[in-house]
Amino acid sequence: MKAFYGDLKLGILGGGQLGRMLIQQAINYNVNIKVLDPDREAPCRKLCNEFVVGSLGDYETVYNFGKKVDLLTIEIEKVNVDALEQLEREGVIVYPQPRIIRLIQDKGLQKQFFKENDIPTAPFMVISSADQLKQSPFPYPYIQKLRRDGYDGKGVYRVTDETYLHKAFTEPSIIEELVDFEKEIAVIVARNEKGEVNTFPVVEMEFNPQANLVEFLISPSTLPFEIQQKADLIARKIAESLKIVGLLAVELFLTRDGEILVNEVAPRPHNSGHQTIEGNMVSQFEQHLRAIFNQPLGDTASINNAIMVNLLGEQDYEGPAVYKGMEQVLKCPGVYVHLYGKALTKPFRKMGHVTIVDADRGKAIEKAKFVQDTLKVIA
Amino acid sequence: MKAFYGDLKLGILGGGQLGRMLIQQAINYNVNIKVLDPDREAPCRKLCNEFVVGSLGDYETVYNFGKKVDLLTIEIEKVNVDALEQLEREGVIVYPQPRIIRLIQDKGLQKQFFKENDIPTAPFMVISSADQLKQSPFPYPYIQKLRRDGYDGKGVYRVTDETYLHKAFTEPSIIEELVDFEKEIAVIVARNEKGEVNTFPVVEMEFNPQANLVEFLISPSTLPFEIQQKADLIARKIAESLKIVGLLAVELFLTRDGEILVNEVAPRPHNSGHQTIEGNMVSQFEQHLRAIFNQPLGDTASINNAIMVNLLGEQDYEGPAVYKGMEQVLKCPGVYVHLYGKALTKPFRKMGHVTIVDADRGKAIEKAKFVQDTLKVIA
Repeated sequence: MKAFYGDLKLGILGGGQLGRMLIQQAINYNVNIKVLDPDREAPCRKLCNEFVVGSLGDYETVYNFGKKVDLLTIEIEKVNVDALEQLEREGVIVYPQPRIIRLIQDKGLQKQFFKENDIPTAPFMVISSADQLKQSPFPYPYIQKLRRDGYDGKGVYRVTDETYLHKAFTEPSIIEELVDFEKEIAVIVARNEKGEVNTFPVVEMEFNPQANLVEFLISPSTLPFEIQQKADLIARKIAESLKIVGLLAVELFLTRDGEILVNEVAPRPHNSGHQTIEGNMVSQFEQHLRAIFNQPLGDTASINNAIMVNLLGEQDYEGPAVYKGMEQVLKCPGVYVHLYGKALTKPFRKMGHVTIVDADRGKAIEKAKFVQDTLKVIA
Repeated sequence: MKAFYGDLKLGILGGGQLGRMLIQQAINYNVNIKVLDPDREAPCRKLCNEFVVGSLGDYETVYNFGKKVDLLTIEIEKVNVDALEQLEREGVIVYPQPRIIRLIQDKGLQKQFFKENDIPTAPFMVISSADQLKQSPFPYPYIQKLRRDGYDGKGVYRVTDETYLHKAFTEPSIIEELVDFEKEIAVIVARNEKGEVNTFPVVEMEFNPQANLVEFLISPSTLPFEIQQKADLIARKIAESLKIVGLLAVELFLTRDGEILVNEVAPRPHNSGHQTIEGNMVSQFEQHLRAIFNQPLGDTASINNAIMVNLLGEQDYEGPAVYKGMEQVLKCPGVYVHLYGKALTKPFRKMGHVTIVDADRGKAIEKAKFVQDTLKVIA
């Protein structure tokens, strides 16, 4: 491989906030970056060496983009994998590997993979039509998830009783036993080409039930050691079974009886790792770069308690974004605002995030609540 | 003023590494940035909304550039101040203020300002020709400095005896008593429009005598409290006397008899503050943005011992840069490499810096020495 500083051309499929924060980190290594995104106003547009507007799902577009880079990575899974596989055959390095993106794009294959590799996950059944819901072995309420293209809570359906059956997704999907969980937790794991594997400390999440998005995340977890260790080992096992090169975000449920079940995985930097920028020795973005460049993985240790709050567009506003309360929030020590370079807000759009650090965990939570109450994205 | 996120157009005079790291931070606030630099290969070229190639010293170029932005700042002092003053009269906000840039550009005026404001500094005399060296009131060796355009040790001359007189600078300069110092230290101070002032902890420096550049810097200082307090108060006093808006880097000597003397100041982010990126709650770049945007200043507290090592081009190499030892250095926990996006190396060119953090100060020093011995910029 060419030297990752300067000579090597890195292509990123997707020009959203994950790409943006990846570039922000890659600046430290003089990485020559080319980005493909369908939106000419994408967050990365002004921060890369070359920005190409085009469809991530189109074979020709992805293939032609990939032919001009040395190393290709993603910041979103919804990309044309056929093109990636062809590029790989033609010598372009693609990390994460196309076969892994293909597997993870499809929740049916993903769950199948967990099952085959003894990765604990909720019982599930793959179905190809809504009709098959009638054969569900699971009691109400259970969950229906589209096999493809679900994200941020979209493509997930809670089947509460039989009156809901006719509203259910008709596309290929999986149904899954509802997990009675106490907490959602996450582990980000990285693996490089040499096979070195490293995990970030376990984090705990809280969701906004209305937006169905991670809204409040706390790092590191204070759950008992055995539970954290179990989660950590599961994340390592998945990364090693997949032989992934790059980052893998593993979302897990801690059930009320102390079991850990994998919910889903994403082969890229992830919303559940944003707090690593200030909260850990290296960030998830730095770690992803180190992994795909086959460099030694960085030290993931927590520096401090860190809380991550997503900054979502307020419900009743649409238009050019205004960040109300910014000055009050910046007055607060240990508060880090990250805006994503999106000119327009709309309800629940991810416009940025804020990380709050404090050596005193209680104070960190207090400050996070203050930030949530104070900083509002309106128009 | 327009909202600093998005609407406001920030112009930066100079597109070097300081501008680059400023932009890297400004990404968090969606700042719309335009950069002027004479070098079309300048480190900022690919990271801003608009990059303009042109002379920083030319009135028309700076004026025309400035007319198209709302707020103008600098990353280098050597800019056309006449144009800045005209822009200011026409309503463009220029921070730091042009009158301060004009004062600091001229070491004669700078020293005069210190004298008039009771800022302790080495005794000096302003001279306009080499002939006046003969009237020096100072014993050999003493220092001759060009009034204008000296930087990184250039434009500084040590007058060791009368045989050197005919080699001395003939341009307007100052001569200064040689300070028998124990240590060079620095304080970075910020002031916003509201008049809020905040300092970073005192840092201690070691120079590379051959390159005459800061090469090794340690933060925070472990000098006695009284000395640090004295340095801190001097920095605050200068910022307040100048009524500067923005960052001011204050370089000081600690003399062998415990006196603190100001060496020189720079009204911008500075090499002596790079370690704040990882070592402090907010970085000097974040603080400069907060100051010029008239936002609350950030918390400058040290998070950890941090050592900053400049990454200079090795003496015998010129050409496309190769970073020898990169992998070994990345293996070392708490080591952060920052490359400046310069394709070509030459002897002593500043190609990047490395920050080393460790809770154990001795270990931090050990790691810094390892980095200095290991990471080499060759061609």
